[in-house]
Amino acid sequence: MSWALNKRLSALKAYVPGEQPEPGKYIKLNTNEFPYPPSPAVAEETANSVLNMNLYSDLNCTKLKANFEKVFGFGGENVIFTNGSDEALYLCFLAFCGPDKGVAFADLTYGFYSVYADLCGLEKTVLPLDSDFKLIPEDYYNCGKTVFIANPNAPTGLKLTVEEIEGILNNNKNDVVVIDEAYVDFSDGSCAKLTEKYNNLVVVGTFSKSRGMAGARLGYIITNSDLVKDIETVKYSINPYNVNSLTQATGAAVLENDEYYKDCIAEICETRDDFTKNLKKIDFEVIPSQTNFVFAKHNEISGKDIANKLREKGILIRHFDKERIADYVRITIGTPDQMERVYIALEEIIGGK
Amino acid sequence: MSWALNKRLSALKAYVPGEQPEPGKYIKLNTNEFPYPPSPAVAEETANSVLNMNLYSDLNCTKLKANFEKVFGFGGENVIFTNGSDEALYLCFLAFCGPDKGVAFADLTYGFYSVYADLCGLEKTVLPLDSDFKLIPEDYYNCGKTVFIANPNAPTGLKLTVEEIEGILNNNKNDVVVIDEAYVDFSDGSCAKLTEKYNNLVVVGTFSKSRGMAGARLGYIITNSDLVKDIETVKYSINPYNVNSLTQATGAAVLENDEYYKDCIAEICETRDDFTKNLKKIDFEVIPSQTNFVFAKHNEISGKDIANKLREKGILIRHFDKERIADYVRITIGTPDQMERVYIALEEIIGGK
Repeated sequence: MSWALNKRLSALKAYVPGEQPEPGKYIKLNTNEFPYPPSPAVAEETANSVLNMNLYSDLNCTKLKANFEKVFGFGGENVIFTNGSDEALYLCFLAFCGPDKGVAFADLTYGFYSVYADLCGLEKTVLPLDSDFKLIPEDYYNCGKTVFIANPNAPTGLKLTVEEIEGILNNNKNDVVVIDEAYVDFSDGSCAKLTEKYNNLVVVGTFSKSRGMAGARLGYIITNSDLVKDIETVKYSINPYNVNSLTQATGAAVLENDEYYKDCIAEICETRDDFTKNLKKIDFEVIPSQTNFVFAKHNEISGKDIANKLREKGILIRHFDKERIADYVRITIGTPDQMERVYIALEEIIGGK
Repeated sequence: MSWALNKRLSALKAYVPGEQPEPGKYIKLNTNEFPYPPSPAVAEETANSVLNMNLYSDLNCTKLKANFEKVFGFGGENVIFTNGSDEALYLCFLAFCGPDKGVAFADLTYGFYSVYADLCGLEKTVLPLDSDFKLIPEDYYNCGKTVFIANPNAPTGLKLTVEEIEGILNNNKNDVVVIDEAYVDFSDGSCAKLTEKYNNLVVVGTFSKSRGMAGARLGYIITNSDLVKDIETVKYSINPYNVNSLTQATGAAVLENDEYYKDCIAEICETRDDFTKNLKKIDFEVIPSQTNFVFAKHNEISGKDIANKLREKGILIRHFDKERIADYVRITIGTPDQMERVYIALEEIIGGK
């Protein structure tokens, strides 16, 4: 830090994103990206939007929101779009936490919750997952905090049921519960419908994982209109034009081609299940995943070694240097061909080649 | 506000952006947008970037930064790109202000400074412009605050000289001075070169006004590498992938076609000077502008009336309902044809038609 940095932030440890090497250098399975190109019609819509980019972007994301409603069933005063779901989460931290309202989240979950809590100077309650990495819903009952839960969770891939989420909502009537559904499209379903029943539920989602827009940055929030107004007050106090017009047009076009993405998602889930079976054949323990990645450990080789040896073979996966999960690796599900190559590489590593 | 909003924000008044009507409804001269389409080569580059948008965007904006350096002369560890310059300003508020460090800015300037100060809970020192709307540099000497100055200023269009900026920098050795150069490309020159001489200077700029990218959202920060590191710590604690890959590609292409933009800027300045002469012919007092807008008042008709009557004639300009400037209107400089139509409309309004 320099002489000039706000003293309150002197100990702030920023989020460390997964490595982003130059495209093509590796089979890149380290940041849970979508492995397919966009639907062919999309780029043309994006190019058209460039012709009007001299005008400020639509503050209300009108066309994007209309298309979103057709696909997701929520729109109007119940949806806010953001510059990736990271911004959605940050807006929730600002809106619903403060000096008198700390946050609760799991010990193993998306690393940004802790960073946001530190940036905002909030009291943190970190609740451990159980020994099988399952989140214990009762731990969150009446905790007196704003709750952040990634569901499905990362890096574990495990998911609470809708009933378990309802338990948490029913037992935190005076606090906001934020369910971060970044990976939900690869799972047995979203809890967004519960926003119509519970006034304390905020659902956050992203176009990064299941709609192939990680680079274009498009996140969303679904909640009741009262909480939307709170979040919009904060949004309009930071960056009203937070979602640029190119991304708005691209997202709208992606949603118009939703069948393509649904097919891709189905293929990713199928590839995941095949890859899981293969991993088990070569003595991996694999946590049953409801996401586009698997979290697995080998009986003999450490997670760090597996990640390093795969890198030598031109394959990038993620290893977290954190005690409870040091044995594990997180592998994004790519195309069937990519996963076949990962499997062959793992066989070689395990065979000592 | 709802039951859930952080109590600290209960009185927060969000920024109110200028009206954004549906395209084509008005001659839109209310938010200082660039009136020309992009250089023809740009849209193709943007469309190409869509093909890789499944991958996260380049955290370092490598290509954009290289092209920026060719045009602006700053790159490497001295530049950060942002999701519009609003985000650049917000990052500066977070990094360089805090409970022990308030902010100083003018009474008539970009409205967001006050909003950011409130959002961050900062002590505000609001320093009035003089009766000619000129900023008095000495007012800022050793004020013990982080200083934010829009230069050229909005909505006045007036600009401090480089020497006046140096006076402020020399007399705030222990505090950061942020110079917001959103409109500088329409003026007699930037003070960015001073970042090499003064370690307390941060320059903020945008591609919205002079590069026709208001909708695509691209801002930048130029400062020394120590302060860049501070700002990056905050950026990586909020939204590491803040500039999406479509905007990065678009910005890089815009810079490759810089001659086109330089020509457009020259035309806008010429149109501004012609329009200023015309306004004076019909009894407007016009503040000499170094921006892509003029700030003017008529001797007989109120600012509000002028704005309303122009709207009836299909022309949107900006009027601020603020006591000191209630007589004035701010008119963005469009194409020569648009400004001719504004002039004819104003002649009719003044002639009582």
